[in-house]
Amino acid sequence: MPDTAALGLDFGTESVRALLVDTRTGQELGVGVAPYAHGVIDRALPHPDRTIRLGDDWALQDPRDYLDGLIQAVREALASARSKVERIAGIGVDFTACTVLPARADGTPLCFDSASSHQPHAYVKLWKHHGAQAQADALNRLARERSEGFLRRYGAGVSCEWMIPKAHELAEEAPDLFDAAEKWIEAGDWIVWQLTGVESRNACAAGYKGCWSAAEGLPSDEFLAALHPRLASLRGKMEGPVRPAGARVGGLTPEWAKQLELPEGLPVGAAIIDAHAAVPASGLSKPGDLGIILGTSFCHMLLGAPGARDDCEGIAGSVKEGILPGLMGYEAGQAGGGDLWAWCVRTCGNEKILQEAHTKKWTLHESIALRAAGYKPGGTGLLALDWLNGNRSPLNRPELSGLIVGLTLATKPEAIYRALQESLAFGTRVIVENFERQGLPVSRIVTSGGIAQKDPAFLQILADVSGRQIEVARSAQACAVGAAILGAVAAGAEGGGYDSFEAAAGAMGGVKAQSFKPQAEAGKVYDELFHDYVLLADHFGRGGCEVMARLRALRGER
Amino acid sequence: MPDTAALGLDFGTESVRALLVDTRTGQELGVGVAPYAHGVIDRALPHPDRTIRLGDDWALQDPRDYLDGLIQAVREALASARSKVERIAGIGVDFTACTVLPARADGTPLCFDSASSHQPHAYVKLWKHHGAQAQADALNRLARERSEGFLRRYGAGVSCEWMIPKAHELAEEAPDLFDAAEKWIEAGDWIVWQLTGVESRNACAAGYKGCWSAAEGLPSDEFLAALHPRLASLRGKMEGPVRPAGARVGGLTPEWAKQLELPEGLPVGAAIIDAHAAVPASGLSKPGDLGIILGTSFCHMLLGAPGARDDCEGIAGSVKEGILPGLMGYEAGQAGGGDLWAWCVRTCGNEKILQEAHTKKWTLHESIALRAAGYKPGGTGLLALDWLNGNRSPLNRPELSGLIVGLTLATKPEAIYRALQESLAFGTRVIVENFERQGLPVSRIVTSGGIAQKDPAFLQILADVSGRQIEVARSAQACAVGAAILGAVAAGAEGGGYDSFEAAAGAMGGVKAQSFKPQAEAGKVYDELFHDYVLLADHFGRGGCEVMARLRALRGER
Repeated sequence: MPDTAALGLDFGTESVRALLVDTRTGQELGVGVAPYAHGVIDRALPHPDRTIRLGDDWALQDPRDYLDGLIQAVREALASARSKVERIAGIGVDFTACTVLPARADGTPLCFDSASSHQPHAYVKLWKHHGAQAQADALNRLARERSEGFLRRYGAGVSCEWMIPKAHELAEEAPDLFDAAEKWIEAGDWIVWQLTGVESRNACAAGYKGCWSAAEGLPSDEFLAALHPRLASLRGKMEGPVRPAGARVGGLTPEWAKQLELPEGLPVGAAIIDAHAAVPASGLSKPGDLGIILGTSFCHMLLGAPGARDDCEGIAGSVKEGILPGLMGYEAGQAGGGDLWAWCVRTCGNEKILQEAHTKKWTLHESIALRAAGYKPGGTGLLALDWLNGNRSPLNRPELSGLIVGLTLATKPEAIYRALQESLAFGTRVIVENFERQGLPVSRIVTSGGIAQKDPAFLQILADVSGRQIEVARSAQACAVGAAILGAVAAGAEGGGYDSFEAAAGAMGGVKAQSFKPQAEAGKVYDELFHDYVLLADHFGRGGCEVMARLRALRGER
Repeated sequence: MPDTAALGLDFGTESVRALLVDTRTGQELGVGVAPYAHGVIDRALPHPDRTIRLGDDWALQDPRDYLDGLIQAVREALASARSKVERIAGIGVDFTACTVLPARADGTPLCFDSASSHQPHAYVKLWKHHGAQAQADALNRLARERSEGFLRRYGAGVSCEWMIPKAHELAEEAPDLFDAAEKWIEAGDWIVWQLTGVESRNACAAGYKGCWSAAEGLPSDEFLAALHPRLASLRGKMEGPVRPAGARVGGLTPEWAKQLELPEGLPVGAAIIDAHAAVPASGLSKPGDLGIILGTSFCHMLLGAPGARDDCEGIAGSVKEGILPGLMGYEAGQAGGGDLWAWCVRTCGNEKILQEAHTKKWTLHESIALRAAGYKPGGTGLLALDWLNGNRSPLNRPELSGLIVGLTLATKPEAIYRALQESLAFGTRVIVENFERQGLPVSRIVTSGGIAQKDPAFLQILADVSGRQIEVARSAQACAVGAAILGAVAAGAEGGGYDSFEAAAGAMGGVKAQSFKPQAEAGKVYDELFHDYVLLADHFGRGGCEVMARLRALRGER
């Protein structure tokens, strides 16, 4: 039966996904996926002169890829769903963040100028561009010295991935481009601007990545100027009407309506960070609801009561209305997630396991994971710190590194894999307990992302380690469903959507029937191991022994 | 030109080697190697009833294998050397230790009795039998309580591998066999007894493994009885004329002369521990000389001035005349050595490395080692504790385990290999510095064993980490050469050998022309890493954090 759908546009790290979701049932009616033509640009610019090399910490994107990909993905989605969809109510957008670009006042990216296209700083800085660590350090130092109020909302300090350090890097390394940039804007907001012709800033990215809050706005000009004289002009580049996720920004422009073969004026909602879109897609909309995305890294998004504290320690950020309108939103993260298992599979293996994988036509990953599932809690004799990509929460110390203890001559590759699984669960438990210790209850946990869909063994470990029931989002493409929910909210009930997130998330989001329940006996063993995990984490992460930073510095020197 | 040779019998863990060495030039004239028919018995007894299973920590041998292997190896050696050798001067024996067996008063092993051959405790307990940990703990505890004088000579405490804990294990678990054993004797001494018909105990094994010293003898009956009432009779089983290594014990019996096709009455010297035989083979015979065997584990043997202290902390043992007559001998050890790299090769690898090894017809080990050699000091970003097989010196804590810190998503298998190489060099430096800090100078280092022969990359790391020149024993079978030197000394100058070790070691032992010299720049980086190695070692090894013991206990529980 043809029905009303909302269109979610999910801009990930490598590709954009367009998903049509039935506004009544949440059924997924059509999908299109388009990889970005230049992917992640981390070696050389997509410039005719290929010799423009990038630094090790760099990660750029070309905004043309977003536009080309968007058209291709939407056309594919529409083609695959046409007979099933009678009407499209609205469009929602989620985007990686902080993924930020310098643009002119009319929204034209600086890298579109042929005069600038050979300059790396003219491009989009992807979230995982890590060139601004020194600037983030300077910001945190100065903000602490000056007791800047905004710091309290970012318990673990400002990250090098965020908007102001990246702007600071631009100001220092390419001052001409900094001055030429009249806008310094999240790519998600830039896309909504392109589609509607209306500039806005979404509260989610502005809050979590831009140091903005509704009550206090952006950090002061005085502070920014003290950080670097050029940054005195930064607020002007970052300001714009801030809208909560899903608020209707405008309607589809005639040009984009034509390109996408969609009705002119179709409502488009303010964007949201990709991870945060998974919260409504998981059916979460109440204080105490915690959504965890289990992907290459892990992201933890907790909803809080409207008046709850905004100064929680050891988290990435607390933002009023940063996830859903009306509620406090808290974000924490683990910088490594599925990445760690991928590392283990490409680093720990032997001929026997490779041979088994080959014979049974398994992937190497499947072969190791299956063996890892054979251990009982404590059975590996190992304990690891899950910091192979640094620590995000609660320490915000990207220079930290992984540790494995308990190795013996009998330790097998799959034991290391299992220890990394457990260490990630311990890292999640640290984050959950940190919320609760500060008076923010966690009453329900719903996971989403690739690992939630495909790795029941890890979900059971997570349940056993945390002592909590672990639920799983219904959709395998939760972020895109969340974007569609934003589209439905932008459309409003009158337009075939919903007037509230609670209603939209209830109808279009939700969880699978099967959940993972904690087992008492495993929990007892994991409690002992967790005690030691915390001992190690405190020793190596809170000043007891700074060997990790020294090793990194020593490696960098040569 | 046919010449005079000495015959060295080198009883290793898996096989016995017979080597004929020219007493004048040290040239190796003939060799035979015979694996033990039953190898290391660690699963089931070589009894018709194969269902007699052994515990995880067990490692036994069948003494018949020593006799059969000896005959085969000597015949092979003689056959390969016959035309080159005019005369054989004497026989020397080295043997793994503490490798100990219960025997009747006439030397018949208890396991030769059909009534006992189904009892695991009737067999030889190989050095690496680890069933007596609880007994070693009890001994150390009681000896400390009673301030027993002998403890001062074993800085790190008595090991579970040694004679008295193994006797205690026998007394507790097989009291009938303990009572039936009129002799509790090192296999090296037992072999010399078989060959000559004369019972003796070699000072090297008696001192390093039997808690004996020339001045004080064995621990007192009172102490032993307090440890376990049955042990009141132990001294009687362990006592016998103690002879320094190479002292002439007797001549070859008519039966053995016939079996080996050698002259009746051929001088046979008192045995030595296999590792210690490498000292004279390396041309070492002066105070300050340090011989290091680099094998599956590492063993460090230092010669000291005649009156030097016998109470050095953190070593395995100090024994007067324990290595060479007239000098103090000090032994320390690293429980893991080449074993760690073998572990790495069977645990850390990926398809790319396997493919490379296959394509280039390298072993996997060669492929990883070659990549590991590409790192500069500090270039891996890793630091490891080399305790995958526990720590022998300076802590004597077999329950400790390996640790790797500094892991990132970019860490490669070969980086782990390299970090393990460096960690073993750091472990050696700890041992060398421990000697010197206690007033025992180390003036020269000569390495021997498989790794010394085959792994120049590791020797360079060892030179850079220790800041010392590293020399390499000339012979690839240094222990067997050392045994032959004992044979030459047993023969004496009149018998075609030598009257002193200094003369024998000077003529028959020695080093290669090429040595490894420390490089200043690498040394600076390694000094920084070593500082952190010591921090980690102290934290995890000296009570700062007992996570390693807890992990082992937790694993053992399930």
